[in-house]
Amino acid sequence: MSEENQPGDADTLQERLNEVTTLLSRQRLVEELVHRQDMPHQSLVENLVHKQNLIELRHRLDSLHSADVAYLLEALPLEDRLLVWDLVRADRDGEILLEVSDAVRESLIEAMERHELVAAAETLDTDELADLMPDLPQEVVEDVFQALPSDEQAQLRTAISYPEDTVGALMDFDMVTVREDVTLEAVLRYLRRFDALPEHTDQIFVVDRDGALKGALTLESLLIHDTETDVRQVMKKEVMRFHPEDQAEDAAQAFERYDLGSAPVVGANNQILGRVTLLAVVDFIRETSEAEQLANAGLREEEDIFASIWDSVKNRWSWLAINLITAFAASRVIGLFEGSIEKLVALAALMPIVAGIGGNSGNQTITMIVRAIAMGQVKTDATRRLLKKELGVSLINGLLWGGLIGALACWLYGSFSLGLVMTAAMTLNLLLAAFAGVAIPMTRQRLGGDPALGSSVMITAITDSGGFFIFLGLATLFLL
Amino acid sequence: MSEENQPGDADTLQERLNEVTTLLSRQRLVEELVHRQDMPHQSLVENLVHKQNLIELRHRLDSLHSADVAYLLEALPLEDRLLVWDLVRADRDGEILLEVSDAVRESLIEAMERHELVAAAETLDTDELADLMPDLPQEVVEDVFQALPSDEQAQLRTAISYPEDTVGALMDFDMVTVREDVTLEAVLRYLRRFDALPEHTDQIFVVDRDGALKGALTLESLLIHDTETDVRQVMKKEVMRFHPEDQAEDAAQAFERYDLGSAPVVGANNQILGRVTLLAVVDFIRETSEAEQLANAGLREEEDIFASIWDSVKNRWSWLAINLITAFAASRVIGLFEGSIEKLVALAALMPIVAGIGGNSGNQTITMIVRAIAMGQVKTDATRRLLKKELGVSLINGLLWGGLIGALACWLYGSFSLGLVMTAAMTLNLLLAAFAGVAIPMTRQRLGGDPALGSSVMITAITDSGGFFIFLGLATLFLL
Repeated sequence: MSEENQPGDADTLQERLNEVTTLLSRQRLVEELVHRQDMPHQSLVENLVHKQNLIELRHRLDSLHSADVAYLLEALPLEDRLLVWDLVRADRDGEILLEVSDAVRESLIEAMERHELVAAAETLDTDELADLMPDLPQEVVEDVFQALPSDEQAQLRTAISYPEDTVGALMDFDMVTVREDVTLEAVLRYLRRFDALPEHTDQIFVVDRDGALKGALTLESLLIHDTETDVRQVMKKEVMRFHPEDQAEDAAQAFERYDLGSAPVVGANNQILGRVTLLAVVDFIRETSEAEQLANAGLREEEDIFASIWDSVKNRWSWLAINLITAFAASRVIGLFEGSIEKLVALAALMPIVAGIGGNSGNQTITMIVRAIAMGQVKTDATRRLLKKELGVSLINGLLWGGLIGALACWLYGSFSLGLVMTAAMTLNLLLAAFAGVAIPMTRQRLGGDPALGSSVMITAITDSGGFFIFLGLATLFLL
Repeated sequence: MSEENQPGDADTLQERLNEVTTLLSRQRLVEELVHRQDMPHQSLVENLVHKQNLIELRHRLDSLHSADVAYLLEALPLEDRLLVWDLVRADRDGEILLEVSDAVRESLIEAMERHELVAAAETLDTDELADLMPDLPQEVVEDVFQALPSDEQAQLRTAISYPEDTVGALMDFDMVTVREDVTLEAVLRYLRRFDALPEHTDQIFVVDRDGALKGALTLESLLIHDTETDVRQVMKKEVMRFHPEDQAEDAAQAFERYDLGSAPVVGANNQILGRVTLLAVVDFIRETSEAEQLANAGLREEEDIFASIWDSVKNRWSWLAINLITAFAASRVIGLFEGSIEKLVALAALMPIVAGIGGNSGNQTITMIVRAIAMGQVKTDATRRLLKKELGVSLINGLLWGGLIGALACWLYGSFSLGLVMTAAMTLNLLLAAFAGVAIPMTRQRLGGDPALGSSVMITAITDSGGFFIFLGLATLFLL
């Protein structure tokens, strides 16, 4: 965090942001005036005000933390966003591009010249560069790559070679290493030669002559032990370490479980490659949970709230298409029973209740089980036990709520047997929901898929079509 | 992290856990045998095997990290869980109780004697104790409280006085403070007197004679600067600080935004009260996102997957009840048009499509907007702009997908006008969904409520009833 722009608390931040937006709207007003007036004198005054205002705006932006500028850019409509972006000091561009969301980053990059992008990219560390690269135009990537010293070229090649959901993608290359046969005093002297330690250094790594990891020396041990002690004596020998191809999600769980602050990443022969910090893990956790939230609602990716209508349509269409297919399937199930509905039209009014409650109950089951699987708490051999429990829950709910709604139907339509069919159909559909709610995620896990992805769509499809079929089928058998 | 039980990687952990479960099932087998046999000699042998096995199991458990024992307890059915819990060393009980989920914690606490609980609680820091206290029986709380030294009693009273979603609840009291007028050499000497620093110390706090916060000295500055330097010269003066009554969510965002490792918490007169660490924030983030996930699916709280059927029913009933009411309302809307359906039964088959797609589209809108609000990107004055965009998206989707499904309806039922009504109803319901999807969260935000809570239920209720009404209404007007 840079010193100049440390807000004392959240309120101050909001105030500063409000100041900037006030300046922005004043700017817009001035621009409009300039536009309208043609008199040379008037225009000159306006122009001065205009410039004065821009200088103030630029000054305010300079005083904001990069993350706050990013936040401001997110909250501004495209036009204002690009005006602010133009005023940001060029040497902060890289940092800010890293902070904004994918959608906003795209809009900023589009507005930049090739040489600006190259300059921005060159201010970044290789691991940051690796995060940004997928969004940069090919020729910018090439320019930047050529400009790097050869060891950083190698790092960058390493960093981009790992898929997004692996430890390699979370890894950075900033770390301090020492040998085990030196004293803490020597380590302290060595550190005093640094202008700064890598961000969030909580331990330094102990390696042998070949760069193989021997242990870790926490800053704590370095500080509390006698300076004459050898590193070997106070280093942690058993260090939680990761391989770059490990799943990022597993590493995140390990960080949380073991309260890690950072961890080394090693390759073949225990060679140290880099480190993962808790902050990289936090970013990963937040991004993953956001991606899940979005996916649950059928959004392909985070949407810039000021995105064009057309971009939004593209972001949402696949989910709607899938739902259209399942809804159409359910509609055809109803089509099978049109004769019955014609004879007893109450069925049309009651059938959505059976389908809807089944979907809700199934979603509860599936959410619970997907979560338990994600936490690693469910072995595949637990299927029978879980099934028994969920079927039990559904039976109770079916008799309880189905009974209630059956009674209502009986009272509304004056038919006891209709109420009975309603109760039976609700219970059966809830049992179906419980069965599918357990079977879908457990089967997908066994087949090695992600049990969360699209489970909600699948269960709703089943309980809709199933609910209509059960209710209309029972009604056809017993009421007509 | 304790040294003895540091797994090299995730595989090793899984192997260790599998060993424990193998031992457990062997144990069960032996118990069954002992139960069946009555011969004294046989029984003696079995008993020996039994004991041998228990000793091995206990040994394995001792070698596991507390977080791993917690994980194991989560994954075991109640009976096995309590067996393992009995074998865990008593001095680790407190730590493990903190790690397990609420539901499992409840089951473990139920199985413990009062004196065991008191002993377990006494191994914890006051901030940890504050987290555990709501789950402990009243008399245990009193015993523990009495046993604390008076300064810790005061801390505990402070810690429990803050609501769960405030910074006060995330705060701990473990920190090192120094004066600004001493040299780094003096600080280093002071730290060497510690046996250990508070966990995750990345900075120590600089306070004046009255305990008011003057700044922070990062371990980094302490290590890289000359030892003759005064603390005053190298300390960070503008430190991001929180008040105990600040919202925990705001603090979490600040930690992420400014990449903080820890931050001081101050009271009146800038008096330092404690600190918040990134790890406490990570726990908070994970818990919050889990709670949201559960709430979205209508689960009141995390469910122990081996919970009794009855506990599960209670956890889920309120959501089902609400959905039943909204489904019933939608059903009554259909009831209004029973005459129309009787005349044209195709309406019954087609109406769920209109309602369903509206619900999906509305949920996309609401998810996007709730997220943007949570990120602070939406001011209430953006409503009109957002509305315009969402209505535009809906219009395109309505004409596109509505047109497609209208064509299908026309082909299936051989009625061009039916297809046209279908397309019109889809479009109108999508527009309704867009309107409600923007209006609901924006209004709730303006009224100061949580825009996320139950928004999905509300929008689905509107698009269901609305969809049925629009489609059946249009059909009645134009087709009959």
